[in-house]
Amino acid sequence: AILSLSSTGGVWLTVDDKLKIASLLDTLGVHYIEAGNPGSNVKDALFFSRAQKELELKNAKLVAFGATVRKGISPKDDENIQSLLSANTEAVCIFGKCWDLHAEHILGVDLLENLGLIADTVAYLKGMGKEVIFDAEHFFDGYKHNKEYALACINTAAGSGADMVCLCDTNGGTFPHEVADAVTAAAAVCRAPISIHAHNDTGMADAVTLCAIMSGAVGFQATISGIGERCGNANLFTTLANLTLKLGYDTVPKENLKKMRAISVAYAEIANVRQLSRAPYVGKHAFYHKAGMHVDVILKAPHAMEHIDPALVGNHRETAISDIAGSRAMWERMRRVAPEISREDPAVKEVLNQIKEMELNGYQFEGADASLELLIRKKLGKFNHHFDLIAFKVLVEEPHSPDVSLATIEIGVGGEIEITAAQGNGPVNALDAAARKALERFYPSLRQIRLTDYKVRVLDTNATASEVRVVIETRDDKHTWSTVGVSTDVINASWIALVDSLEYKLLKDELEKGGES
Amino acid sequence: AILSLSSTGGVWLTVDDKLKIASLLDTLGVHYIEAGNPGSNVKDALFFSRAQKELELKNAKLVAFGATVRKGISPKDDENIQSLLSANTEAVCIFGKCWDLHAEHILGVDLLENLGLIADTVAYLKGMGKEVIFDAEHFFDGYKHNKEYALACINTAAGSGADMVCLCDTNGGTFPHEVADAVTAAAAVCRAPISIHAHNDTGMADAVTLCAIMSGAVGFQATISGIGERCGNANLFTTLANLTLKLGYDTVPKENLKKMRAISVAYAEIANVRQLSRAPYVGKHAFYHKAGMHVDVILKAPHAMEHIDPALVGNHRETAISDIAGSRAMWERMRRVAPEISREDPAVKEVLNQIKEMELNGYQFEGADASLELLIRKKLGKFNHHFDLIAFKVLVEEPHSPDVSLATIEIGVGGEIEITAAQGNGPVNALDAAARKALERFYPSLRQIRLTDYKVRVLDTNATASEVRVVIETRDDKHTWSTVGVSTDVINASWIALVDSLEYKLLKDELEKGGES
Repeated sequence: AILSLSSTGGVWLTVDDKLKIASLLDTLGVHYIEAGNPGSNVKDALFFSRAQKELELKNAKLVAFGATVRKGISPKDDENIQSLLSANTEAVCIFGKCWDLHAEHILGVDLLENLGLIADTVAYLKGMGKEVIFDAEHFFDGYKHNKEYALACINTAAGSGADMVCLCDTNGGTFPHEVADAVTAAAAVCRAPISIHAHNDTGMADAVTLCAIMSGAVGFQATISGIGERCGNANLFTTLANLTLKLGYDTVPKENLKKMRAISVAYAEIANVRQLSRAPYVGKHAFYHKAGMHVDVILKAPHAMEHIDPALVGNHRETAISDIAGSRAMWERMRRVAPEISREDPAVKEVLNQIKEMELNGYQFEGADASLELLIRKKLGKFNHHFDLIAFKVLVEEPHSPDVSLATIEIGVGGEIEITAAQGNGPVNALDAAARKALERFYPSLRQIRLTDYKVRVLDTNATASEVRVVIETRDDKHTWSTVGVSTDVINASWIALVDSLEYKLLKDELEKGGES
Repeated sequence: AILSLSSTGGVWLTVDDKLKIASLLDTLGVHYIEAGNPGSNVKDALFFSRAQKELELKNAKLVAFGATVRKGISPKDDENIQSLLSANTEAVCIFGKCWDLHAEHILGVDLLENLGLIADTVAYLKGMGKEVIFDAEHFFDGYKHNKEYALACINTAAGSGADMVCLCDTNGGTFPHEVADAVTAAAAVCRAPISIHAHNDTGMADAVTLCAIMSGAVGFQATISGIGERCGNANLFTTLANLTLKLGYDTVPKENLKKMRAISVAYAEIANVRQLSRAPYVGKHAFYHKAGMHVDVILKAPHAMEHIDPALVGNHRETAISDIAGSRAMWERMRRVAPEISREDPAVKEVLNQIKEMELNGYQFEGADASLELLIRKKLGKFNHHFDLIAFKVLVEEPHSPDVSLATIEIGVGGEIEITAAQGNGPVNALDAAARKALERFYPSLRQIRLTDYKVRVLDTNATASEVRVVIETRDDKHTWSTVGVSTDVINASWIALVDSLEYKLLKDELEKGGES
């Protein structure tokens, strides 16, 4: 699987986001991660340079992506080709025209020249020691209009040493039965292994991918949740589950698919997009059974109503009846705080119920383990809280000079009360500054921490009165932790997450002093 | 096409909503509208009674939906069957078990008894003069496990007079190639016409529907935008476009497909759901071209980059204005405001440069066309601004009662100054309320608009002092538009986007009055 990390389909990723997502994909076990074009995008170039230092991939190879050499230039003088090399990846992916119309009228070269560009580029990159994937752009439209030429293009790539030829349905209009024919024909004449890159313009991306594999392709390119230009691409999760769990193909280790639901949720959080609740396999509603007849059936015979066991993809059944699926996992989690706790301890159920209620109100603890830890400790009486908010006021005004949001805060620590104020870039920054200023007198270790990420997520479509979820990431010299807050007021939600963040730091300090870890 | 109006897949419809949607579907030209179960749902019963009086359908027949008769009861004494009749529809749809497992273990009848229930129900309803569609529940799983029995069930229905047998993939786990085999087998032995009802649990609903049609089915059941239980159903729009525009099948008049985009948007409005921007054919991004090179190609030869003409489904091409788009795309965009502008006009370059600079600062105009429109108009001197902000103050405090963020605002319109204040859920909501309160006196049409989405994106990881981008979506009775604002202060960013949103509405009003469109 090759995965695009490019900012497309309404998703905008920072370099940090991309690094996190690449790690997630690696734990899923994908073989290639296509991470952008270092030649046309400064951010992509930065990604590759940081990835080399910061990422330790166990399964996946990073792939840099670019076009065939320009006409009349040697690959060693083509700056795009050179920037591909500068990404320093083991594998590169280059796209080349395979539709005569595109070669002649868009690229403006004649058909033989275009074959030359393909051959020169592939041969040059092979000579530089790269694993080369050739993306056969517009292959299927090309095949429809000029079969011989489309096949000549991929054979040229294969003949020049391409390790894999990926047939791309760039316009997304090809149907599964047409793909099956073309893949069969390509596989019959091309010596390189064939893979498939599908778009979803007719709602067929996943079916096209499946059909190609069943017709002789040995690899596929897909994106997380099918995110991509226009109508999106093949969905990595759907395709992996279809091939591996239902059709018996060898893709990534079956065991890894149990991480899919969690990875899809983590991705949505990182990319700040909504996870589609009706996404196949990994969506929140994928195994949701309405009250009534269906629930009865499910209890009598799950296999009569579910096409696979949801646990195989890390998802779980949702029914109208109370769901105890999470209680074992919660028990395991709580044992990390209280090793002696029994499976039957009522606190397990109580924490689960509290979390369910909070999740109904928009909380999500999957990306906020520090908040979860505090919640468990409070329930088990293993938490000393360090300060009380008495009041805050935040004032934002326009016109303003920079740094002018103002927060005042009144905080109680033990018997003492501290009142202070601070300014900041925006209201949350001012409140953060005021809270730390008030607390550092009592807890100097708070000087060690800094907030490294701040994410705001609007939870429904009730516009500016919507509930928002704020997730804050905090770091000290040893650890990084995340906390969450939900409110209709972005400042209040930030405050809730901020309190957890500060309390978690103070808890860590206590545990370290006490010798606990 | 049969269409479910049931409240499912997170969509909740009132009877009024359903009446409106039924009219929309009728204008699209679908042949059947399955509108619920009058026996199990009071709201559905009310729908049918109002529909008889209030709806004037030109193309579609309404269909009432229910189960086969219960064991040991005659259809004339079965209250569910009788309530089906009370819906007073020309056609009815009844579902019956076709998987031996379900008949024996869920329904608790033996296999021959189940055939008797099917036969009795169909024959009775035919005797009452109804057109009868038999929904063969779990047909494909039944066919996998006990082929003879599954076929016996549909033959029983056909033999008792069913006008149509719909093969249902109730669990949604069947792949297109399996469906093709089973439909071929069913069509070979069953005298009634065959149709297909697919679910999307493996991402294949649209492909399964297509495959069934290509294997001999003559009808399909689909839902608007694929909304449905779990992962949804086949998507009516996608399937109609695939079959009609690309594969040459006779479905609804081709001309009607030009209404699809508008109908899908109207549905989202009525059902209060978000229209998926990447929905095939009808989504906002379905013909959206991003990368610089693609935009060039599109302008040279649209058919080289688009699998159909967007006008065929009432959609239109969007070429992105982003930091990688060139001056030609900007020129095309500006011509929509100023048709006379020449390619060489310095304003083209100036707008491009301004956008580039703004994008460096975190702006993104791809999802905010109304802000882009205003920016272009300002540059071209084709914009009258309607109000000036003199000052605002927003106060957030803790502890607070609900609705307590307070905003004061001072706004100038012409020579007049309006000062007012409003409360809200959170600071942005309060500011929005105050601004509208101040402006509605001057511009009553602002009462027609509502904010339908509010998105906050933190742009880098400089924690709470980060720059944030706010995108606001606004709607009036005719249009939806999006605007953007960037600032380190979430409230200020929201303000910038809000101002554009209000100005865009006032601009639209002016253009409409002036006869421009």
